[in-house]
Amino acid sequence: MIKVLVWCENRQNKTDEAVKAVYPNGMHNTIADFLNLDPEISAKAVTLDDPECGLSEEALKDTDVLLWWGHIAHHEVPDEIAKRVQHHVWRGMGLIPLHSAHFSKPFKLLMGTSCDLSVPGFFKEQLWCTLPGHPIAKGIPNPIQIEVEEGYNEVFDIPQPDELVFIGAFEGCRVFRAGCAYHRGRGKVFYFQPGHETFPIYHNATIQQILTNAVKWAKA
Amino acid sequence: MIKVLVWCENRQNKTDEAVKAVYPNGMHNTIADFLNLDPEISAKAVTLDDPECGLSEEALKDTDVLLWWGHIAHHEVPDEIAKRVQHHVWRGMGLIPLHSAHFSKPFKLLMGTSCDLSVPGFFKEQLWCTLPGHPIAKGIPNPIQIEVEEGYNEVFDIPQPDELVFIGAFEGCRVFRAGCAYHRGRGKVFYFQPGHETFPIYHNATIQQILTNAVKWAKA
Amino acid sequence: MIKVLVWCENRQNKTDEAVKAVYPNGMHNTIADFLNLDPEISAKAVTLDDPECGLSEEALKDTDVLLWWGHIAHHEVPDEIAKRVQHHVWRGMGLIPLHSAHFSKPFKLLMGTSCDLSVPGFFKEQLWCTLPGHPIAKGIPNPIQIEVEEGYNEVFDIPQPDELVFIGAFEGCRVFRAGCAYHRGRGKVFYFQPGHETFPIYHNATIQQILTNAVKWAKA
Amino acid sequence: MIKVLVWCENRQNKTDEAVKAVYPNGMHNTIADFLNLDPEISAKAVTLDDPECGLSEEALKDTDVLLWWGHIAHHEVPDEIAKRVQHHVWRGMGLIPLHSAHFSKPFKLLMGTSCDLSVPGFFKEQLWCTLPGHPIAKGIPNPIQIEVEEGYNEVFDIPQPDELVFIGAFEGCRVFRAGCAYHRGRGKVFYFQPGHETFPIYHNATIQQILTNAVKWAKA
Repeated sequence: MIKVLVWCENRQNKTDEAVKAVYPNGMHNTIADFLNLDPEISAKAVTLDDPECGLSEEALKDTDVLLWWGHIAHHEVPDEIAKRVQHHVWRGMGLIPLHSAHFSKPFKLLMGTSCDLSVPGFFKEQLWCTLPGHPIAKGIPNPIQIEVEEGYNEVFDIPQPDELVFIGAFEGCRVFRAGCAYHRGRGKVFYFQPGHETFPIYHNATIQQILTNAVKWAKA
Repeated sequence: MIKVLVWCENRQNKTDEAVKAVYPNGMHNTIADFLNLDPEISAKAVTLDDPECGLSEEALKDTDVLLWWGHIAHHEVPDEIAKRVQHHVWRGMGLIPLHSAHFSKPFKLLMGTSCDLSVPGFFKEQLWCTLPGHPIAKGIPNPIQIEVEEGYNEVFDIPQPDELVFIGAFEGCRVFRAGCAYHRGRGKVFYFQPGHETFPIYHNATIQQILTNAVKWAKA
Repeated sequence: MIKVLVWCENRQNKTDEAVKAVYPNGMHNTIADFLNLDPEISAKAVTLDDPECGLSEEALKDTDVLLWWGHIAHHEVPDEIAKRVQHHVWRGMGLIPLHSAHFSKPFKLLMGTSCDLSVPGFFKEQLWCTLPGHPIAKGIPNPIQIEVEEGYNEVFDIPQPDELVFIGAFEGCRVFRAGCAYHRGRGKVFYFQPGHETFPIYHNATIQQILTNAVKWAKA
Repeated sequence: MIKVLVWCENRQNKTDEAVKAVYPNGMHNTIADFLNLDPEISAKAVTLDDPECGLSEEALKDTDVLLWWGHIAHHEVPDEIAKRVQHHVWRGMGLIPLHSAHFSKPFKLLMGTSCDLSVPGFFKEQLWCTLPGHPIAKGIPNPIQIEVEEGYNEVFDIPQPDELVFIGAFEGCRVFRAGCAYHRGRGKVFYFQPGHETFPIYHNATIQQILTNAVKWAKA
């Protein structure tokens, strides 16, 4: 059984009606719920409001793969806890930063770059798999259609991925490295771009399949 | 002085009025001419019609970097000459396959994959640099605007590039790894997508700068 | 169930007493036998002497992962069959070339380089894992002790591996990239250096574990 | 002219007779001196004892490539200054951490991993170039003989290099990724292992050539 922790800052979930409309149960619970449909996965959700942000030593020791969604409260995660996450990745924990978690402290610590990008607006996205033999792409149509997403745009200031699994193409000839896999220490990291809080991305069965695949890849 | 050979199959150049209108002097001569504007480069052009396709042992021994444009006559290059080019790359010669040369024999031999892609039509392209510190991107605006190009689309069946320098974004949410750098043996390879025969791509000063940069990178 | 084919040229197995002493049942059967101990794997052995070298379209269509041991008879494999193997890798089959199969036709076709190396003699080897979180390294001690092996030495003329999993260190300050993982098309390739025919390498439980891991990784 | 800054903690240089015997003028001055023999390079040396460690905003703005040697005083470099170096790499400055600078703050920040390794003793080293077409290897014999060096040993906990240029082989079947090239932001990083303070490594003409090459590569 793969032990998964789904971390969410849980801020806009509580205050923004547009977000609540899409994720009435909270984005983190939505993600944990679909992961739990897989018989090999046991997922639970924690948030910034939990003691030690839900990321105590004990919690991380008991975690194989951590998913991370944050946006407006990155700075509320104490540096010490961000480093704790980084160190657990070094020892073998998987980390899957989602969407605006490109600016989360653990991801930035693990990449060593600014992780900056540009955000030109909201667009239709086609997500292309550029490495169709990768375990994370297993059973996934190519391309994936996303009716509307927040456009993320290059230059995405990251180290070159060990495996570039997806590239997102947005209306207006915009492009973004959307699925980026890394080894860091004994752990694996998979950044995945889709997942803006006001769109039903995590209700999309294909996106769910990608994240389920990513959890298994990160544990392997 | 960097000794450059510009190879072109020179077929559509001779028979297709649309191509002749864009490149009255031949595409190969156009490319050699702008490369020769750089004081460090000495370029000459050869074609499939030359003895040994212009690619004799002597010619290749005297070449630092070979640019290659081919489209409808890949099969007319003898296997033995394609292998000769491959072996010169192994010994240190640079190779810059252009546009439809993704299907040229030397590139396919050096990649080991099918080098297949899809060709959905003609579109506006924006070419994004994803590695702005790379020598090939020096002094290049980001993105580069190309009014109309033949769209090439993923999946581009190549080995993961050692350095992915450019990604092309085409209208209609299409995407292509457009500037791909590799080490092969002691030589370097840079595949570059823009350059359809009926559009004035090689008259574009930015494209010219990229290819001049690529020649210097391949020689370094 | 992972369907595995173990291919061996089976030449020295038949004529060289030193090889027969180590692998009385044939190296290919030894490898297939230990792979079959894993409940997820179903392996069978074929040789150069079988019709179509044991590598008919039907056989390859029914193969998830192909292991390949060859040494003195690379040239006896018809080009057409080598290309057939290459094309099956493109479509998703895993390939695990062993030891002197660095010079096998399918590996050379898939790498695009000369795959040359130097062979300075016979030495003690320590095999170091440089990517301990990789699935192929799961449960493997670091380093692995090999009492005596044929020394392979850099420069190993291969494309940079997507994942460099092992480096072999030989007496006399010699070094070799010994475990090299690649994506090629939809398939995966893992070259693994240990396995000289006169030493009991494939009887070593740790080497067996690495190859069992590699089969699962190549199938994933 | 390439503007180079050679940074050294300058601690053992002052207190350890064995170090003073090898580098009477200070290791940093030795390095700056041989770099200055190249007509394209203008190098100066600074140390931890200089105001702002010699790494003021003004100094870094005026630096193309920074070499860094530190060992026992990594912790004396203020976090703020380490981050300043990191940010200058993001904007395009080259960084060449030497030997025990694998544990320097700027390198660790840029890698995102622990950068740990093991140190088994002092040994003869042979340094093998695994990418002989790389600009840093230009004109360098293969292998390079180093009579005695401090052995560094895998596992070296770094991200997979974009380009693995050298592997060090030490007596006793020990091995270390000794020359590791990375892109980070717009800047380049080249970690280079040889350079223990009590051995005349930086007086070795081949090592000098490698570092001169590395400076030019980092600036390109």
